[in-house]
Amino acid sequence: MTRDIAITQVRITPIAFRDGPLLNAAGIHEPWALRAIVELETSDGRVGISETYGDEPMLRVLDQAKELVIGLSPFDLNQMEERVRATIKATPGAVEFELAPGSHAAKNAPKVISTFEVAMLDLQGQIVGAPVVDLLGGKVRDAVPYSAYLFFKYAEHIDKPYAPDAWGEGISPEQIVAQAQRMIDLYGFQSIKLKGGVFEPAHEIACMKALAKAFPGMPLRLDPNANWTLKTSIEAAPELDEILEYYEDPCPGLEGMAELQKHTKLPLATNMVITTMDDFRRGCNMGSIKVLLSDHHYWGGLRATQTLARMARLWGFGMSMHSNSHLGISLMAMTHVAASVPNLTYACDTHYPWQEEEVIKGGRVKFDNGAVRVPTTPGLGVELDREQLAALHEQYLTCGVRNRDDLTQMRKYQPEFTGKNPRF
Amino acid sequence: MTRDIAITQVRITPIAFRDGPLLNAAGIHEPWALRAIVELETSDGRVGISETYGDEPMLRVLDQAKELVIGLSPFDLNQMEERVRATIKATPGAVEFELAPGSHAAKNAPKVISTFEVAMLDLQGQIVGAPVVDLLGGKVRDAVPYSAYLFFKYAEHIDKPYAPDAWGEGISPEQIVAQAQRMIDLYGFQSIKLKGGVFEPAHEIACMKALAKAFPGMPLRLDPNANWTLKTSIEAAPELDEILEYYEDPCPGLEGMAELQKHTKLPLATNMVITTMDDFRRGCNMGSIKVLLSDHHYWGGLRATQTLARMARLWGFGMSMHSNSHLGISLMAMTHVAASVPNLTYACDTHYPWQEEEVIKGGRVKFDNGAVRVPTTPGLGVELDREQLAALHEQYLTCGVRNRDDLTQMRKYQPEFTGKNPRF
Repeated sequence: MTRDIAITQVRITPIAFRDGPLLNAAGIHEPWALRAIVELETSDGRVGISETYGDEPMLRVLDQAKELVIGLSPFDLNQMEERVRATIKATPGAVEFELAPGSHAAKNAPKVISTFEVAMLDLQGQIVGAPVVDLLGGKVRDAVPYSAYLFFKYAEHIDKPYAPDAWGEGISPEQIVAQAQRMIDLYGFQSIKLKGGVFEPAHEIACMKALAKAFPGMPLRLDPNANWTLKTSIEAAPELDEILEYYEDPCPGLEGMAELQKHTKLPLATNMVITTMDDFRRGCNMGSIKVLLSDHHYWGGLRATQTLARMARLWGFGMSMHSNSHLGISLMAMTHVAASVPNLTYACDTHYPWQEEEVIKGGRVKFDNGAVRVPTTPGLGVELDREQLAALHEQYLTCGVRNRDDLTQMRKYQPEFTGKNPRF
Repeated sequence: MTRDIAITQVRITPIAFRDGPLLNAAGIHEPWALRAIVELETSDGRVGISETYGDEPMLRVLDQAKELVIGLSPFDLNQMEERVRATIKATPGAVEFELAPGSHAAKNAPKVISTFEVAMLDLQGQIVGAPVVDLLGGKVRDAVPYSAYLFFKYAEHIDKPYAPDAWGEGISPEQIVAQAQRMIDLYGFQSIKLKGGVFEPAHEIACMKALAKAFPGMPLRLDPNANWTLKTSIEAAPELDEILEYYEDPCPGLEGMAELQKHTKLPLATNMVITTMDDFRRGCNMGSIKVLLSDHHYWGGLRATQTLARMARLWGFGMSMHSNSHLGISLMAMTHVAASVPNLTYACDTHYPWQEEEVIKGGRVKFDNGAVRVPTTPGLGVELDREQLAALHEQYLTCGVRNRDDLTQMRKYQPEFTGKNPRF
């Protein structure tokens, strides 16, 4: 019986990988992005894997939660959830990064649940000989579409910790169009998102217009990360409403977004004003959004993402998917759950093109026409490359980064940068 | 690979079984209750089973839906759901029985999805060697508690189609207490529900008080099935608020229940004002209820019930479970899903003690201290007894009942009975 298999060991390995000098509302990416690779080992010698946040507060919470899965069967997802809910609380004094919902301490329990759930589903799939998506009700699509995620960026990090990336500077409309072209040439993406909230709105709108001209008919999105005031967001809307498929988090707050939605026919999308189930309950009838960006890492896992999708359908919201800097294990978990969601109405976000390194066997995941094929092999369909894991862990030990801090990093370039939000 | 198994055949067998002369707001149960037993056969010769409504409109809808699962893998739950949603619509002119949400034509798609899903999960469990509950995230309890479901009743059917049941008449407070005692002696139930809305409220309240006196400390519920006006419900509340654990659907409508909730500290429960996901969306913030009675047969299946449970938790509602006359396949499906729901805060309803016949091997399901043990064998954990199935199908063919009609049946006893609701 499958029931006799128990989880006997939990390994948590923090890793660091190179990340580009990508600009956002809070500042700029540091040269190293952090993740944690979590392995659950079973009594019959299997290993289930998962990828999550690697900042220090998250590592402490994961370490605290380890014992909660020991002795459970990989099929005990509900018991695992209840144990984590009962034990893991918000951590006072945790370092939180406003723009990254995954860093919020209030989400500790859903983040831990998600981490364990993915590894347990990987184990279940290995045990029964089915891909994870089959344990989520099966796929409704064979491949999951992602979008080209453009960033304003400098040519290289001010600290020059390693050779510059191949993307070059991305500031002018021409450079942004060139970045999009390169990303589409490499991955085949069929929609484009620009992370905004960095420069004057007029400049970012000019970039969107340049993209619309260079890629006629291509669905476009702009995400000012709540760095525009309501007034700015209302004023910008008429300039964008012919070219965007959605307008993501231009201004802060459920109330602000609700007011903005009255002034524009553009669907408003969010991964900022509704990022927990409680937010959903509070915000679902406020008219603040029309598209919800899910993220299994902080919404509580793949099954919670499916619940969220059913709720989104019920309230008439479209669904897309948020990302942070991540590697292939996260990408495959995203792909399995996205393949199971009928109402995934937009291509998912992914930072994947901005990474060069990997921890999985076979190296970088392949994209075909901007989409990732849903694996048909058991479990997540990817395995750890232990040499790579060791190398990226070594980078973690030596890189010096322990918490994401885009603001301090930005001050190396602009000492007067405040990160004040909304700036425009 | 598990993926290579396909559903090749669908068999739908309507059955009829003996049912007692149980009184309710709409009238009285007919001598025969109908169900449909659905079998999905696979390319590798397995049979997955399910039990659902057996009225004529449901049989027509099931027949129409049959082809939608042919060729799917038992793991293709999401594809099955999408196909059914796209194809199966409300049937104009269907016979609907107000008090039985399962008869509502608007629920055709969720009813079909549920029917197929249970049989497909049974197949999945057989294929991977795990009980259905493990495919729902695993059990959080080893046994599922049910409540003693009391009915006002006559000693025998007016038509005298077969010998009277062993329960006798149940009308006076003393008879209701005796009915409860017998049911508890036989099954060990640890909570009691009385189906009300039949006699003058003062009489039903007297019965509840007699139960409270006879079974001190036992959680009690009264369900007048919306047959009391708001005024009557408000007036009755102070007489009940020391003895009930919840007050189920005393008066009609989300608005009525919301007004009533302002007048009583008793938690209001429902399987009448919120019976679809759309009802939930409309009603969740109205203050109408504090306890939601789920029922996988019409809510869209076991996974939809889990979604509903997560939503109930989010909105702060307790969870219990509704039933109609049913046999052991439904009971086991209810048990698997209830075992997976952490926030099942009340014992589930079941009509099971009112049935004597069965379609499963081994006969009647055993109760221990009012609870059903969650099977640990693969799939649902029960198999069809084909001789019994044939016998109950034969009863269907000869009994003459094709749609539930408690009103017409009641008029045989009381020709002036109107079924007007609310009556009191």
